[in-house]
Amino acid sequence: MQSSTLKDVTQNKPKLLSRYTSTRQRTASICRPLSKEDYVVQPVEDVSPPKWHLGHTTWFFEQFVLIEHVADYQPFDEQYSFVFNSYYENAGKRVVRAHRGNLSRPTVEKVYEYRKHVDEAMEVFLSVDQPQAIWDLIEIGCNHEEQHQELLITDIKYILGNNPLLPKYGPFDQSTAIDTDMRFIPVDAGIYSIGYAGEGFHFDNEKAVHKVYLQAYEIADRLVTNGEYMEFMEAGGYQDFNLWHSEGWEFVKQLNIKAPLYWYNIDGTWHQYTLAGLQPVQRNEILKHVSYYEAFAFAQWKGMRLPTEFEWEAAQAQFEWGQRWEWTESAYLPYPNYSKVPGALGEYNGKFMVNQKVLRGASVATSPNHSRPTYRNFFHPPLRWQFTGIRLAQWT
Amino acid sequence: MQSSTLKDVTQNKPKLLSRYTSTRQRTASICRPLSKEDYVVQPVEDVSPPKWHLGHTTWFFEQFVLIEHVADYQPFDEQYSFVFNSYYENAGKRVVRAHRGNLSRPTVEKVYEYRKHVDEAMEVFLSVDQPQAIWDLIEIGCNHEEQHQELLITDIKYILGNNPLLPKYGPFDQSTAIDTDMRFIPVDAGIYSIGYAGEGFHFDNEKAVHKVYLQAYEIADRLVTNGEYMEFMEAGGYQDFNLWHSEGWEFVKQLNIKAPLYWYNIDGTWHQYTLAGLQPVQRNEILKHVSYYEAFAFAQWKGMRLPTEFEWEAAQAQFEWGQRWEWTESAYLPYPNYSKVPGALGEYNGKFMVNQKVLRGASVATSPNHSRPTYRNFFHPPLRWQFTGIRLAQWT
Amino acid sequence: MQSSTLKDVTQNKPKLLSRYTSTRQRTASICRPLSKEDYVVQPVEDVSPPKWHLGHTTWFFEQFVLIEHVADYQPFDEQYSFVFNSYYENAGKRVVRAHRGNLSRPTVEKVYEYRKHVDEAMEVFLSVDQPQAIWDLIEIGCNHEEQHQELLITDIKYILGNNPLLPKYGPFDQSTAIDTDMRFIPVDAGIYSIGYAGEGFHFDNEKAVHKVYLQAYEIADRLVTNGEYMEFMEAGGYQDFNLWHSEGWEFVKQLNIKAPLYWYNIDGTWHQYTLAGLQPVQRNEILKHVSYYEAFAFAQWKGMRLPTEFEWEAAQAQFEWGQRWEWTESAYLPYPNYSKVPGALGEYNGKFMVNQKVLRGASVATSPNHSRPTYRNFFHPPLRWQFTGIRLAQWT
Amino acid sequence: MQSSTLKDVTQNKPKLLSRYTSTRQRTASICRPLSKEDYVVQPVEDVSPPKWHLGHTTWFFEQFVLIEHVADYQPFDEQYSFVFNSYYENAGKRVVRAHRGNLSRPTVEKVYEYRKHVDEAMEVFLSVDQPQAIWDLIEIGCNHEEQHQELLITDIKYILGNNPLLPKYGPFDQSTAIDTDMRFIPVDAGIYSIGYAGEGFHFDNEKAVHKVYLQAYEIADRLVTNGEYMEFMEAGGYQDFNLWHSEGWEFVKQLNIKAPLYWYNIDGTWHQYTLAGLQPVQRNEILKHVSYYEAFAFAQWKGMRLPTEFEWEAAQAQFEWGQRWEWTESAYLPYPNYSKVPGALGEYNGKFMVNQKVLRGASVATSPNHSRPTYRNFFHPPLRWQFTGIRLAQWT
Repeated sequence: MQSSTLKDVTQNKPKLLSRYTSTRQRTASICRPLSKEDYVVQPVEDVSPPKWHLGHTTWFFEQFVLIEHVADYQPFDEQYSFVFNSYYENAGKRVVRAHRGNLSRPTVEKVYEYRKHVDEAMEVFLSVDQPQAIWDLIEIGCNHEEQHQELLITDIKYILGNNPLLPKYGPFDQSTAIDTDMRFIPVDAGIYSIGYAGEGFHFDNEKAVHKVYLQAYEIADRLVTNGEYMEFMEAGGYQDFNLWHSEGWEFVKQLNIKAPLYWYNIDGTWHQYTLAGLQPVQRNEILKHVSYYEAFAFAQWKGMRLPTEFEWEAAQAQFEWGQRWEWTESAYLPYPNYSKVPGALGEYNGKFMVNQKVLRGASVATSPNHSRPTYRNFFHPPLRWQFTGIRLAQWT
Repeated sequence: MQSSTLKDVTQNKPKLLSRYTSTRQRTASICRPLSKEDYVVQPVEDVSPPKWHLGHTTWFFEQFVLIEHVADYQPFDEQYSFVFNSYYENAGKRVVRAHRGNLSRPTVEKVYEYRKHVDEAMEVFLSVDQPQAIWDLIEIGCNHEEQHQELLITDIKYILGNNPLLPKYGPFDQSTAIDTDMRFIPVDAGIYSIGYAGEGFHFDNEKAVHKVYLQAYEIADRLVTNGEYMEFMEAGGYQDFNLWHSEGWEFVKQLNIKAPLYWYNIDGTWHQYTLAGLQPVQRNEILKHVSYYEAFAFAQWKGMRLPTEFEWEAAQAQFEWGQRWEWTESAYLPYPNYSKVPGALGEYNGKFMVNQKVLRGASVATSPNHSRPTYRNFFHPPLRWQFTGIRLAQWT
Repeated sequence: MQSSTLKDVTQNKPKLLSRYTSTRQRTASICRPLSKEDYVVQPVEDVSPPKWHLGHTTWFFEQFVLIEHVADYQPFDEQYSFVFNSYYENAGKRVVRAHRGNLSRPTVEKVYEYRKHVDEAMEVFLSVDQPQAIWDLIEIGCNHEEQHQELLITDIKYILGNNPLLPKYGPFDQSTAIDTDMRFIPVDAGIYSIGYAGEGFHFDNEKAVHKVYLQAYEIADRLVTNGEYMEFMEAGGYQDFNLWHSEGWEFVKQLNIKAPLYWYNIDGTWHQYTLAGLQPVQRNEILKHVSYYEAFAFAQWKGMRLPTEFEWEAAQAQFEWGQRWEWTESAYLPYPNYSKVPGALGEYNGKFMVNQKVLRGASVATSPNHSRPTYRNFFHPPLRWQFTGIRLAQWT
Repeated sequence: MQSSTLKDVTQNKPKLLSRYTSTRQRTASICRPLSKEDYVVQPVEDVSPPKWHLGHTTWFFEQFVLIEHVADYQPFDEQYSFVFNSYYENAGKRVVRAHRGNLSRPTVEKVYEYRKHVDEAMEVFLSVDQPQAIWDLIEIGCNHEEQHQELLITDIKYILGNNPLLPKYGPFDQSTAIDTDMRFIPVDAGIYSIGYAGEGFHFDNEKAVHKVYLQAYEIADRLVTNGEYMEFMEAGGYQDFNLWHSEGWEFVKQLNIKAPLYWYNIDGTWHQYTLAGLQPVQRNEILKHVSYYEAFAFAQWKGMRLPTEFEWEAAQAQFEWGQRWEWTESAYLPYPNYSKVPGALGEYNGKFMVNQKVLRGASVATSPNHSRPTYRNFFHPPLRWQFTGIRLAQWT
């Protein structure tokens, strides 16, 4: 990831310190409803223990700010780098991702002490003048932590939603109902400008701004609902291989998939686990937790398709978004003139640019103000534990 | 498992109630040094989370005593059977063993409440007269829980000993030094009686008493030490395939095994993780945490062999035992006229009688008075997380 | 795949019959140097036994032409559909791909009889007037068989090149030397037309013709040589994770990859297996048998990149191509207004449009006249058994 | 394996030369009905390509006789040792077992040339006087080849019986009908002598002769029939976990096993593939192709058990045997005073003495005169491709 050079020189010290503090507090507040045991487990490799997220986001500031820029900083524990590094090869060895859930230590209490230790050092450090590069780094760290805030919510949902007791987290994750017909917004063919053009924070993968030629197309003004998706299910969508990619069909057959993630059929009625507990599926609420494979198959069944990320970006002022990460047809690839920053932070985005799909928008779990129209999220096609949804498109 | 009929009619109500209570208390006391997080994790499939042991031993009494024999008993939570059943097919569906570490709920606190709930009901139940079959069942339950007490210790050691921080549990697991030469006790050829012949508690796999003809042999009067095993290592024992079973050699190569479990070579010096922390290996202490494959290869290298379980039992009065579970050459098979009890408890032993090796004796982690000369423990050949050791034998 | 409607009405019956016959004969001639045993084996899942290719291309004509369009046609063997179907879900059940190498029957001789049976029926069928749709189908079948001709060559190379005896196939696979410096052709920014616009045969994935806006770029006038790639190897390219995608780095580490496929280091000198036998690697010959991951890492190391498929197509008139399939940076995705044909033939391309990379050009193994500037080949990023190579690009 | 010292000094040169020649010829004659393609494939790891058996048995004589004892012997091909070594670690590196089916070369023709080359050298070598140790080695080699003759038959059956075309091999594998009730032979308790006591050829695992005390038991006078086994199937034997070992139950569930190997239910009628083709199952023929797990479960269902190998050996004069390898309850372990020969031949038996079950008797596929009452065959519990059957036993 990279912020390139932040041009917004009006952003000043007190504002960033406050941003740092509030970001850190919000992370802790997401974890507040958890019992200690919930912090520890890792039911599948893609889901990390909440304790690990707390430690990892802290390690990010300790490793890239304090250790590198504060002369007499004393690391909280020399071994934490091994425990809390995620994937930065440049930053040394680390616990294999699949084994994060095997670690009972450091304890939750210790991890909070670690956060406190780093926060106090950060606050001292940020209370004095620092060069622009440092402010850029803080901004990156806060955005990084916001990304982990979203992962905390989705990982907590997975941890609780796969427990046979289906425990509640709290009043989150309710969907608002949709009561309008789906309409299609026509967009003219032509050259469009794509990518981040402002002066605020953004990731390196949103640059450089460049021109893209789009054919004329139409894009839906709202997301697909549970009811619309249930029609696909009822029509045998999960049984008709003609609707699926070859890999998608393997996915469905091998994992015996018959519905979105967290859907349970109880005595003939579909329910879904939400963070507020198990509830009957409401037909007029927005669909969530589908894979790219399912999104593609649904669109095929409708005789339509998913939009590309460029079509999405070109049209996004004309519809509401922010409830679901929306699968696009685009593969995650570098933009023209993309360049990654040197060193460890250069590992943030570029090295993942193969075999993943771009998602656009933001979800109910995304941190406030974290997303923007040029934001490029990305996941592997089979993943479903994010709050993902479907927006349809078609050729004119 | 089965106690067959307990003949010891002198064993009376107050004694068994007190046995129940003290057994249950000892289980909790083993867990006292743990942090809550330590209760939850499962680093490998063979190791269960301590929380699960606490729940499972409680479920055993709830399922087989209270639910079956107390008319108005209210189960603590209907779903706990699904969570805490281990492998009793007769007792319904259950969480797959490999997924025990994915469960953050029920919380540790809830599990202790569950124990309290069951203990209170048990104490009421045991305070009145019960038929002999009930007393037998209590005795089985206490023995079952003692087995899990040992597993708690070995599983805790695995959980902490595979954590990169190598945290201490407490002053356990110290080995006493050996300062005598190994001597071999000669045993004459002849017919020996094998199996449990008393009237106290025992498992079904110790019966029926039967005759076995043994050729003349010699058996070591003490266990192998670290120093003796290090000679094997230094002589290239882990590199010489001629010493190993074909499967043992695969085990060594695939897992890159070069020393007993918990041994770490730090700057050229062998250390071992103990529950009291990391310590240099002492050459004159008793070896522990080797697999059957290693025990066999070591014996081959010495030009000797492991004793059979019958040789061990026939000679056991003539040497000290109790520090380590001792690998024998015997496969775990039913004795003549073996019969398992009907119903769920019949699944205790018999269904495991294939592809396992018998271990005799007891270890420092075994519950007091839990073992006896006819006790038959059993594990798969590659397993090392129990406190296992080596006793040598040879033909006369 | 799909030919859409072939507009070239000048193409007449005798010409297509002759095309059919010569295509079929060329397939058999590729197999002529093989021993019977070479026809049978399948060392890895991606490689099919030559016998299977012979049967599958025949089954294609039998299934989609003879059975559907010749009223009294007698299938050679009812069970061959099960054996020789590749992946057409619409055409019924089939032998799992990974098990093709387990089949000793039908014998090679029987498969050649099968070819003869179908060829004779086809020649009768094609000797009379047929509607245009039939001619289209024949054209598809011939193109399909040409694709399998290339796979035959690459699969035979894999079968022989992974045999410890490294047997020779024949005088194929020699590379011509390159003795010019690499020069970069500048291409202006602007809108370019992409996709097949002619009236001859083409696949559905080359349509629809559409506009693409390209930024200014430069593209190399020749492919990378062995010598240039050896500089990357000698500079530690396979050891520097910063050059690799995260998945590429896993690929290199897990498979312990240190050189292109078929390279063997013998006493310090790099050799490569070719169909003409083992030979020392010549530095000035064109590199072959690299994965996308390696192509990407090499370009990173050069401070350059791979071209997109659109850049390649827009510039292809200005450089020579045809020696190697050239990895592009483009993911394999549908073009605007892409539509697949109904029925089984619709499974040809569309269902593979996820997680694959586009390769452009053609290789020394490609059938004559089979490729064209708009041709889109595609493989998964780690695959190396095709004659793949690297063309560099960079931003202006 | 080992013949220990052959005491039978009457066995002379001409007889052994003729034994060598006839053994070698019988191997080739077993392969005569095969097509070349049948020689090459390896559908599962336990089954080796017939070509490999032909080469391996030849390599055995080349490696252990000719190379070691004939001064000027020229190996046929230096690389064949790598290709045809089975598992002798002492004899150098080798093709991994699972990859034997990937090798199209050496061709079948070459392998027969190899046999001819070695046979000619052997005949020269054996036409002159040789020390007793050489004769012993020849005897071992012939017995080794006889074991592979049986494997050839069972592997050919697997190769053809898993081919969707179910091709015939020839008039083999017919079962004779049984028309007698099963009767049980009582055997008295007492000490019995076990192990090979003669002076002819035998393997090291049959020694030393030793005493075993047996409790009184009864053993069936004939093997179990298809009809008796079908009663078990019809009674739900494959669905009742109480009849199975824990590992056996996993085996049944994971592989979805519902009948013996090679049984196919066609329109409600059970058929079995035999080397003479697919045939309806005859109820009064002897059951074949069951695993140890199935044999155990069947015996449990009958309220009986399998005999131990000692019980089998002590009683074998009183019943007919030789149609099936009979699963026993005994684990494959060394006899008292077992010692393996030094060097590569010492790898023949001892290193497999863990996690396997002993089978006694012989099968219709066993080479004539190859077996004897003390012969100990051994396989892993789930294996079914040998001609295995069930003999019941029970306590008196």
